[in-house]
Amino acid sequence: MSQILKGMRVVEGSAFVAVPLAGLTLAQMGAEVIRFDRIGGGLDATRWPLAPNGSSLFWDGLNKGKKSIAVDMKTPEGKELISRIITAPGEEAGLFITNLRVNGWMDHPTLSKLREDLIMVTLMGDRKGRPQVDYTVNPALGVPDMTGPEGHDAPVAHALPAWDVAAGNMVVSALLAAERHRLRHGTGQDVELTLKDVAAATLGHLGVLGEAALTGKSRPKCGNALYGAYGQDFVCDDGKRVMIIGLTDRQWRGLVKMTGTEAAMQRLASASGRDLSDEGNRFRLRDEITGILKPWFAARPSAVVARACDAAGVTWSQVRSVPEALAEDPDLSDDNPVFTTMDHPGVGRYPVPGSPVSFSGYPRETPVQAPVLGAQTEEILADVAGLDGTEIARLFDAGIVRGPHSGGTRSAA
Amino acid sequence: MSQILKGMRVVEGSAFVAVPLAGLTLAQMGAEVIRFDRIGGGLDATRWPLAPNGSSLFWDGLNKGKKSIAVDMKTPEGKELISRIITAPGEEAGLFITNLRVNGWMDHPTLSKLREDLIMVTLMGDRKGRPQVDYTVNPALGVPDMTGPEGHDAPVAHALPAWDVAAGNMVVSALLAAERHRLRHGTGQDVELTLKDVAAATLGHLGVLGEAALTGKSRPKCGNALYGAYGQDFVCDDGKRVMIIGLTDRQWRGLVKMTGTEAAMQRLASASGRDLSDEGNRFRLRDEITGILKPWFAARPSAVVARACDAAGVTWSQVRSVPEALAEDPDLSDDNPVFTTMDHPGVGRYPVPGSPVSFSGYPRETPVQAPVLGAQTEEILADVAGLDGTEIARLFDAGIVRGPHSGGTRSAA
Repeated sequence: MSQILKGMRVVEGSAFVAVPLAGLTLAQMGAEVIRFDRIGGGLDATRWPLAPNGSSLFWDGLNKGKKSIAVDMKTPEGKELISRIITAPGEEAGLFITNLRVNGWMDHPTLSKLREDLIMVTLMGDRKGRPQVDYTVNPALGVPDMTGPEGHDAPVAHALPAWDVAAGNMVVSALLAAERHRLRHGTGQDVELTLKDVAAATLGHLGVLGEAALTGKSRPKCGNALYGAYGQDFVCDDGKRVMIIGLTDRQWRGLVKMTGTEAAMQRLASASGRDLSDEGNRFRLRDEITGILKPWFAARPSAVVARACDAAGVTWSQVRSVPEALAEDPDLSDDNPVFTTMDHPGVGRYPVPGSPVSFSGYPRETPVQAPVLGAQTEEILADVAGLDGTEIARLFDAGIVRGPHSGGTRSAA
Repeated sequence: MSQILKGMRVVEGSAFVAVPLAGLTLAQMGAEVIRFDRIGGGLDATRWPLAPNGSSLFWDGLNKGKKSIAVDMKTPEGKELISRIITAPGEEAGLFITNLRVNGWMDHPTLSKLREDLIMVTLMGDRKGRPQVDYTVNPALGVPDMTGPEGHDAPVAHALPAWDVAAGNMVVSALLAAERHRLRHGTGQDVELTLKDVAAATLGHLGVLGEAALTGKSRPKCGNALYGAYGQDFVCDDGKRVMIIGLTDRQWRGLVKMTGTEAAMQRLASASGRDLSDEGNRFRLRDEITGILKPWFAARPSAVVARACDAAGVTWSQVRSVPEALAEDPDLSDDNPVFTTMDHPGVGRYPVPGSPVSFSGYPRETPVQAPVLGAQTEEILADVAGLDGTEIARLFDAGIVRGPHSGGTRSAA
């Protein structure tokens, strides 16, 4: 948490990764973020990973520091309430992010009748409006085809929803850019992007589409090698694995010097007729280079390798599983100001990240845990929708809204 | 390109993916982005992928629509010039993004003496200031350990620099958030983030760290299956592959209905004692489910499968290589307003992406190609650094700056 965006209010109608991540990013920069869900929870209310008690660690992770309101949006009154919350007054409000647009009520033309300067950012699956997820966009664009061990004959999916993460961050940029513009010109904005376009444009920016178009060929799978220069994983004497980088000239020279392989590399360069100071040649000759380097790593325990790399200024990391990283790497502990280990009642104790961004003008703050579904229903109806106690009580009694308790009755809070 | 950020000027001192992508994103939203490089080009000037003529498609992709100035920063005069450009006046200027901070000259304390309200966003490798790249951060945090075919015994790296992409987008958000704050309060900001923290925080947000902390176990590799619900790739009658999603309840029911497997799924549920309307049970029983569905896909050519999926509203995609996607998918062609197929002199013709974000107030514009290194050296010295013709000529003659021609002499332009 920091307070750099303090004063801004964003309403989020979302599920899954991208838009919840966008709302989280804004909340952790100090914005008030109101996530609305249907009664009983949204499509992602029980998304894996789960805690041992069955609650969703995914939901808890992506909704930290937000306010939650639960509304029956099948009713006209529920729809009206949500419209009112999205378009509530305030110079720094009227900001709506969603991946659940519904034409005819929850869309920009309809909502902007209630607030002309509304900024609405909609993330869609693809430009025809079809649902798409990271798991479909990524193989459609050829990334799994390039991923995996050399010679493996099938596409290999990534375990990370990388395009969702990218798209969520772009929702934030797009919202901030549109709000910057509104501040100067007073105008609202209907902003659209699609998960597939985010992925396709990024692959274009990285040169991957140009490469395929100009060569007509797929980039071959190259295992854990760094593409286009040198980088490879090695198994050390104690069975632990390290990743070693020779991308820049300085990194490469440091690696050769540390391992004392100058003469062997010189012989390889002479025999192949290829200058190893050219990064592309290091990629072309990666198998031979790895063969030369391997014995050095295989003869040393990983702790010795680690110290040698640090002393020589070689860019490297230890290869770990997530539990190993949690147990061994201080960057995932309270030693790192990004993390705070917190108790989650009924769930357990684990390190919780705040924003990875630090602003000099604002000290980092402890992350705020995700709300229980409907935790701020009453508060939002009063403070944002502007309803009085009688109206609020009637909505609870009619089951149109729900508080944080599983029963349909009004919260005691 | 859109013009939503028109008027903003950002200076970029960068190499590789993240910060260049941040500058590109800002440029494609209409900001004036000045990238400075050393004479001869930065660390990424020849980064792969390359075009058949040897030029870097990577560099061309990540620097579209920017202005380029080439300066010898080893000289005191070169350093002074860059400092002057970074801190040049203008209400919407004084914005600097970098992954190449040098303490003592190119850092916030030094530069803010020249412009007190400077906003500088610095991306580092890790919080100790060590260089890290996507290829080291990702295995350090356990993602390759979770990636790859079931039973494969080694970590599998992703082919996409996913954390660089995420970090680049966060540089944009951080810059826009800090500039929003400056507009209201007049204060500059020293903003820092690290590639490793971006990755670690994101894995925390996704619930991956909580899962490992609470269960003590690594998430097992699960091939191309969707984690925690149902999703799998299938080979069709013609050998082509499709990815099929049963994440939400509606997707799952659509898939079962389309394949006519209601009875078989019912038998599986009865035999296993597990309700398949629970998404987690669909993941637990994924192998059995895939066994039931496989014959349906194996008996149909992919075109028939495609039509059936579209008709049934099943979320799916075709699995392709990049060249196949370019040849077959209109989303990667000029049919999609994100892309414009352009000639690149000496390099070739390929589709170029603009921003994936569309703003209702601004029509999309054709993407602008990357500059030749030093293409705007003279213009920037005059318009931004405020030098007169005599001073500029002297800098060219002294070799402190260079124009777009490989010789050291002043551009004819």
